Amino acid sequence: MSGRVNDDFIKKEGDITSGPPSGRHPSGRLPYIHKVGKPPKQNLVKEIATTVKETFFSDDPFRSFKDQPKSKQFVLGVEAIFPIFNWARGYTLTKFRGDLIAGLTIASLCIPQDIGYAKLANLPAQNGLYSSFVPPLVYAFMGSSRDIAIGPVAVVSLLLGDLLQNEIDPKNVVPYQRLAFTATFFAGVTQLALGFFRLGFLIDFLSHAAIVGFMGGAAITIALQQLKGLLGIKTSQFTKKTDIVHVLRSVFHTAHHGWNWQTIVIGVSFLAFLLLTKYIGKRNKKYFWVPAIAPMISVIVSTFCVYITRADKDGVAIVSHIKKGINPSSAGDLFLTGEYLGKAFRIGVVAGIIALTEAIAIGRTFAAMKDYKIDGNKEMVALGSMNIIGSLTSCYVATGSFSRSAVNYMAGCHTAVSNIIMASVVFLTLELITPLFKYTPNAILASIIIAAVVGLLDFEAAILLWKIDKFDFAACMGAFFGVVFVSVEIGLLIAVALSFAKILLQVTRPRTALLGKISRTNVYRNIQQYPDAKQIPRILIVRIDSAIYFSNSNYIKERILRWLDDEEERIEEHGLPKIEHLIVEMSPVTDIDTSGIHALEELYRSLQKKEIQLALANPGTIVLEKLYEAKYSDLIGDSNIFLSVSDAVLTYAPKTSNIEEP
Amino acid sequence: MSGRVNDDFIKKEGDITSGPPSGRHPSGRLPYIHKVGKPPKQNLVKEIATTVKETFFSDDPFRSFKDQPKSKQFVLGVEAIFPIFNWARGYTLTKFRGDLIAGLTIASLCIPQDIGYAKLANLPAQNGLYSSFVPPLVYAFMGSSRDIAIGPVAVVSLLLGDLLQNEIDPKNVVPYQRLAFTATFFAGVTQLALGFFRLGFLIDFLSHAAIVGFMGGAAITIALQQLKGLLGIKTSQFTKKTDIVHVLRSVFHTAHHGWNWQTIVIGVSFLAFLLLTKYIGKRNKKYFWVPAIAPMISVIVSTFCVYITRADKDGVAIVSHIKKGINPSSAGDLFLTGEYLGKAFRIGVVAGIIALTEAIAIGRTFAAMKDYKIDGNKEMVALGSMNIIGSLTSCYVATGSFSRSAVNYMAGCHTAVSNIIMASVVFLTLELITPLFKYTPNAILASIIIAAVVGLLDFEAAILLWKIDKFDFAACMGAFFGVVFVSVEIGLLIAVALSFAKILLQVTRPRTALLGKISRTNVYRNIQQYPDAKQIPRILIVRIDSAIYFSNSNYIKERILRWLDDEEERIEEHGLPKIEHLIVEMSPVTDIDTSGIHALEELYRSLQKKEIQLALANPGTIVLEKLYEAKYSDLIGDSNIFLSVSDAVLTYAPKTSNIEEP
Repeated sequence: MSGRVNDDFIKKEGDITSGPPSGRHPSGRLPYIHKVGKPPKQNLVKEIATTVKETFFSDDPFRSFKDQPKSKQFVLGVEAIFPIFNWARGYTLTKFRGDLIAGLTIASLCIPQDIGYAKLANLPAQNGLYSSFVPPLVYAFMGSSRDIAIGPVAVVSLLLGDLLQNEIDPKNVVPYQRLAFTATFFAGVTQLALGFFRLGFLIDFLSHAAIVGFMGGAAITIALQQLKGLLGIKTSQFTKKTDIVHVLRSVFHTAHHGWNWQTIVIGVSFLAFLLLTKYIGKRNKKYFWVPAIAPMISVIVSTFCVYITRADKDGVAIVSHIKKGINPSSAGDLFLTGEYLGKAFRIGVVAGIIALTEAIAIGRTFAAMKDYKIDGNKEMVALGSMNIIGSLTSCYVATGSFSRSAVNYMAGCHTAVSNIIMASVVFLTLELITPLFKYTPNAILASIIIAAVVGLLDFEAAILLWKIDKFDFAACMGAFFGVVFVSVEIGLLIAVALSFAKILLQVTRPRTALLGKISRTNVYRNIQQYPDAKQIPRILIVRIDSAIYFSNSNYIKERILRWLDDEEERIEEHGLPKIEHLIVEMSPVTDIDTSGIHALEELYRSLQKKEIQLALANPGTIVLEKLYEAKYSDLIGDSNIFLSVSDAVLTYAPKTSNIEEP
Repeated sequence: MSGRVNDDFIKKEGDITSGPPSGRHPSGRLPYIHKVGKPPKQNLVKEIATTVKETFFSDDPFRSFKDQPKSKQFVLGVEAIFPIFNWARGYTLTKFRGDLIAGLTIASLCIPQDIGYAKLANLPAQNGLYSSFVPPLVYAFMGSSRDIAIGPVAVVSLLLGDLLQNEIDPKNVVPYQRLAFTATFFAGVTQLALGFFRLGFLIDFLSHAAIVGFMGGAAITIALQQLKGLLGIKTSQFTKKTDIVHVLRSVFHTAHHGWNWQTIVIGVSFLAFLLLTKYIGKRNKKYFWVPAIAPMISVIVSTFCVYITRADKDGVAIVSHIKKGINPSSAGDLFLTGEYLGKAFRIGVVAGIIALTEAIAIGRTFAAMKDYKIDGNKEMVALGSMNIIGSLTSCYVATGSFSRSAVNYMAGCHTAVSNIIMASVVFLTLELITPLFKYTPNAILASIIIAAVVGLLDFEAAILLWKIDKFDFAACMGAFFGVVFVSVEIGLLIAVALSFAKILLQVTRPRTALLGKISRTNVYRNIQQYPDAKQIPRILIVRIDSAIYFSNSNYIKERILRWLDDEEERIEEHGLPKIEHLIVEMSPVTDIDTSGIHALEELYRSLQKKEIQLALANPGTIVLEKLYEAKYSDLIGDSNIFLSVSDAVLTYAPKTSNIEEP
């Protein structure tokens, strides 16, 4: 049926298009010429305002404030900073049920992870737990993501530990901790500042490809670090470096005397168990909770085993002590003067940004799944405040954890309340049961971490990158090998550098294409993409696929002239009529600057020398305005600027049509 | 007449377009669907090869070598490196006449300038003349520009002098000179390397706007420096700094005792004379030679005056001594070890790149005027070799001079022979008449330099920038004030930084537009640009004006959803039918990466939630391939990818047509 209606419509459409000869052409061009005649003088203030808005307020955060009474605006303001006051009103018991279950699940997952991650950052175990208590609470009030699970994460812990130990030897616990808190403080400040000054878009400069590679590399590095705990190698015998070469060397050097078989037995067997549960959870989504509680179970079981067998006497390293009680204040511990201030700042900025990218990525992913919006900048403010407060309460950098957030989501959380539940559980743990962790073997923590970071190795993503974009793949691999073979910072550096290189390459070498007419339509398309698109004798049609800026204007000009040369060669060979018109399809040219206009002028001159007429088809408003400001339209003549390629061809058509039917 | 033929054609065209109902639609889509069916598997090697070619060999330098015998290829190779062997064959007496006149004119212009510019670089006068002897000769053999005039230039001299004196006090003449030669050597190496490795495009990253600002600022700074000579202030009393504040302060502090009225009389009167001749030359192009020879005349006259009046006894500073004889070798003077090596390298790189941008800009300008091509990379090789050889023969960085090249062009030069003529004149000067410069007052050199650099202040360009692109203008002003108020390097830094900032901004915040149907055509255009373009009920058409990359993918997704929200608000107000289809016009989307595809997937999902069907119109080859690789086409369905917007609308049309005629 639709087919029939279609045909009717097409007939009608057809008639319209052909129309009365005298009528169609003008009407086709009329709105255009009218437009061209006097491009609306652009108001400077307005113009700058729009640019600023699109750059910093592209998400139009104040929309809801529009035409509201002051009081209402105040409420909205508070709700904007503390979304909890917004969603709390609509909070129900059913929602709480979901949040409760989710909260308990992620708590059981986070406690053992926290202890391990704290070790990764060379910090005492309790700091890990602290970081799962205060920050989640703060986030629950300020954050706008409903699914994110807040706490320490593997990659940031590794990065932080790596950067910190370059400055202070972790053996000097107190100064090391102080530096960690100071760095956390500045990480928070960085995040807050980025959000407050609406610079959220800056993190978009870390390309997805680079992050995949970086995460993968970090996963390998972290896993390698765990060999120490898994094989029971003494810290004194183990390298400080994180690159694969050094680590493996010190692993093998310690092989014959440094390893401890009891540790290996415990570690490997539980690792196998954890990976198995992971596999089960993957295979069947409704068993997601199996891998979620497995770590806690293994901790309990192994601790119990060690306790009764007193394996620690046989050299099985154990946690031995976790400080009891909740977060002590660390406000006085920050380095606010002296040489460490600057170092802490540098480290904080790096760690803060990495933490951000992870949190924002998580937030966006789950927001898309449940179809609610997340204001990146507002998130940053929330995360920033959370880490600042954290740094004053003995926490180190916390952010959203991929693995736990996924569990949280699958456990059916509805709001950030699940984070509050988790925090409360951690609170109880700190107050009551930390002593029970005394006999927990480090090997378990190692295997838990390994099982956790395996998820960071995203092979599918890497393969997809390879398939889709070789350059992206290169960036990914660069970051990966940088982290694995050199160090975390270097890997990060490579990732950022390659991300930028790609942008610059894109801007310097835009694509251009020859267009041909697709038979029996008015449509002109790339003749390489549509082989049966026909070029029109005596007319060459080139499309520029990018804004024309100083960085590519010369290239574009020369590329077009080269298309012309090639074409003229071909024409000579086949003895076709020589080219008289060059039509430049400008639709994709979204903007142009002075260098671009210079290039177009030079193009025009070179064509004049060859007695070829230059014509522009469908330049956008901005481009048009600028061409007029620069008097370029006068140079090539208004009559040579067209609404569409087909209009341009129509105008130069007589010659064409004669050729077409000899 | 053409009008009539037009109409005929339009009728025909119209018929074709409407065509047989059954026929048009398929044939319109056929080539497309066929294409979509199996996008040509892209060959990796080929793909990478093309990228490399477009990036580094976009000008296809080896074209002429194709299918030629070995011997011929060798000849071509030599000619490629030494173009002189190419054009020398066709050299005629008439050409020589032009070159002779041009050569003599620029010689008379360059000799006084060289002496002055050498002072600007804190070098002995003869080094300036040396740099107008060897480098032009080398360039004549290797360069491909026919109009450029080689020698020392004001901006580079200033930059070099400024950078060098930060390292060594110019009073220590010998080490200072050695550092200058070493820097020149590395400047040459940089240029040669950039050309050899085909990295010429890198200089395109210095935007035209930034250069205009930088040059203007440099002009002011140079002019300010000349006040010293013009007012006869003793060097000891004059600041080393180049910023306007320090300079003016030390000018006024010396006002009551440091100035020398005789110097001022000479300097100011001749400055007036020079500016007058400049004005004459500008007013009437055929008197271009007046300003060209004026400097030489003023030198002769003033020198004579001072000689007879012995004004130097009354404190009129004079050149006093220029070493006689041509370039001595400086091969042994280069710092090839020690702390200065690195410093010289840094300075050389900066000076070399600035020199390049100036030379390339000149080359391109005049090449465009006379319609011959210039291979940027080959030019760089020529300029590089020229400066390397120069550095071994007591020259400092030489490049193309705007002012002298213009004179050269107007004097009717045909080939680089004019440079040879100039060099020979400089040779004779060095051999015979340098002693005559003994009594030349520095004030004259000062006024000559001021008169010369006035031309670097390009107000028209600045105004044009303001009119066309506010951001460009900002970059221009930034560079300008940076140079004038802080220092040359800072100005340069600002220029580069702003150039990059612009690129990044362009990539993060691309434009999007709502499209409407222009009545009685199949053409869909931005409704803001074409107010009478009609939107189609129940269909929203959005155009994305950029490649979709990680740096903008999130923004694009959110922007499109915002367009949708706004539209739905509008629709509610007017009680129009709700939107059922969202068509994304992909023509301008020249490329997409994995992040981009992720964004499209998220967009699709969000739309699904709103029960809106997503459709893509006219994605390019590369984009299509990637969408297929990523299985995105399966997600949204092949049938929702169209050849053009009008096709898409046609397909969803029945609903539309019903609405259109109630």
